[in-house]
Amino acid sequence: MSESTRVVVVGAGAIGSFYGAILKRAGCHVSVVLRSEYDAVKANGFRIDSPLGDLSYRPDAVYRDGDTPEGEADYVICCVKVLSSIDRGALIKPWVSDNTRVVLIENGIDIEREVADALPNNPIISCLAFIAVSRVAPGEIEHKAFGALTMGSWPEGVSEECRAIAALFEAGGIDVKRSEAVVGERWRKSLWNTPFNPLSVLAGGADTVTLLDTPGGEALARAMMAEVCAVAAADGYPMPEDAIDKNIAGTRKMPAYINSMALDYLNGRPMEIEAILGNVVDIAHRHGVDVPRLETMRVTFAMREVLGDKQA
Amino acid sequence: MSESTRVVVVGAGAIGSFYGAILKRAGCHVSVVLRSEYDAVKANGFRIDSPLGDLSYRPDAVYRDGDTPEGEADYVICCVKVLSSIDRGALIKPWVSDNTRVVLIENGIDIEREVADALPNNPIISCLAFIAVSRVAPGEIEHKAFGALTMGSWPEGVSEECRAIAALFEAGGIDVKRSEAVVGERWRKSLWNTPFNPLSVLAGGADTVTLLDTPGGEALARAMMAEVCAVAAADGYPMPEDAIDKNIAGTRKMPAYINSMALDYLNGRPMEIEAILGNVVDIAHRHGVDVPRLETMRVTFAMREVLGDKQA
Repeated sequence: MSESTRVVVVGAGAIGSFYGAILKRAGCHVSVVLRSEYDAVKANGFRIDSPLGDLSYRPDAVYRDGDTPEGEADYVICCVKVLSSIDRGALIKPWVSDNTRVVLIENGIDIEREVADALPNNPIISCLAFIAVSRVAPGEIEHKAFGALTMGSWPEGVSEECRAIAALFEAGGIDVKRSEAVVGERWRKSLWNTPFNPLSVLAGGADTVTLLDTPGGEALARAMMAEVCAVAAADGYPMPEDAIDKNIAGTRKMPAYINSMALDYLNGRPMEIEAILGNVVDIAHRHGVDVPRLETMRVTFAMREVLGDKQA
Repeated sequence: MSESTRVVVVGAGAIGSFYGAILKRAGCHVSVVLRSEYDAVKANGFRIDSPLGDLSYRPDAVYRDGDTPEGEADYVICCVKVLSSIDRGALIKPWVSDNTRVVLIENGIDIEREVADALPNNPIISCLAFIAVSRVAPGEIEHKAFGALTMGSWPEGVSEECRAIAALFEAGGIDVKRSEAVVGERWRKSLWNTPFNPLSVLAGGADTVTLLDTPGGEALARAMMAEVCAVAAADGYPMPEDAIDKNIAGTRKMPAYINSMALDYLNGRPMEIEAILGNVVDIAHRHGVDVPRLETMRVTFAMREVLGDKQA
């Protein structure tokens, strides 16, 4: 089967290029849709240094927005950043046929709905990537560590199509966890990301040690995590009782670490505020859950955006 | 009396220079203690443009830290910024004799204690300035509008000494409100400053219209103001019920306005975070009042400071 599986990766940044390489390794026909790095990748393909070995590859096709796809895709892998300025549904629609499954490898809570609304008849497979990977130059990716995926059908279950793509990722050499409740998996990842990512930005791009060692810092992080737990529970995904303790202990064990949103901030790149924080606050409002700390951060970011638009 | 009243202004920035001018106009003997602008003021005195007329003056003495004062001061007017890096008690102590009254013209909550601890035998008169004044060049001040003082003895009452200096300020041409409960006056000013000042900084230096017109902005400001009200009430200074509505309405009536802390932030100057925000949170903790939004901001600023110290 793998020889005939046709994959199109939309948004082939560091994450998309990496998982494209994994599927290529599994024998899939892998095409990519690019924006800024089209010329470099068209000419030279991807160079990917990885602990898994040399994952460099030439995609079977390199497309730009507006190109006409050759053949129908079995899977469209969407690795586009989740930003209110980007209509992901419109972005992937041209690459999706009646029988295409849409695979989202993206961060955040409730990020599937927008895509499902745009493509109501295509199955959606929702994935979380646990990976350290970054782009070092056009078409050049450095895979530092990890790479496991957690995936499930959205909104729930593990469909046949989900099992098939999971098996391909495994054949390519990475660990895959299948989850009957992928939304719950998102909530578990959100328990860390929703407090720490925006907080590190508001603190000026602070690393994890700075955040936790500042007087009141750990207490604030814990209080924000408790707000996330309350929303998750109201949404039907209660977190284990020791989840907060475990997350804090795990963070304390790691060396000082600047999370991806803080890196986006420090490098002037757009941040996934709504996917990571705003959607959690919206869900809290729907369920009448009080989230004063998360709301303070969310509105502060909204103020920054309004101010930025005025200054632009 | 006014001819013989000897005043030393410590921290003669825009505020100190202005109120020194008012007391000079009232016939006082006015000396100033300066740091960076010593040379300019020693040579040329102060130039102060004001709607009240030309308030320019030459101080009767211009001192630097470490100088020996000539004669004893009846009043030391402290207009130093309230920063954890500045020991105001130590700064004013050399200019204070047994009979000197200490007049604080400074922002914030619970900013008197540190000075009272350093000078336990000198009466403290606590003042709030409602003024728009700024420094335009060394020794050159632009007084744009307002200028009224609210003052009282600290921690409460209106002593004879307070009445005397109030009368001198009035003789110099400004309005003075005497308050039997100056701490309550500070809480009333804090109702606006404590939410809006730090929020405008975290929002990137946002003006009042941006803060209030961002979706969720007014609601967040009101919720923070309610936290201030709860702390003030627990501290013995309940706010009138319509205080929040009136403050919001008043802010909406004004044109877009960047507050002084946001200006400090945008100009890279130190900010009075603890005086305006941190002390309110500390008092909340003492009384067991929950202030999640204020605490979120306070800890965020503390994180910024820890990060800044690491990067320095």
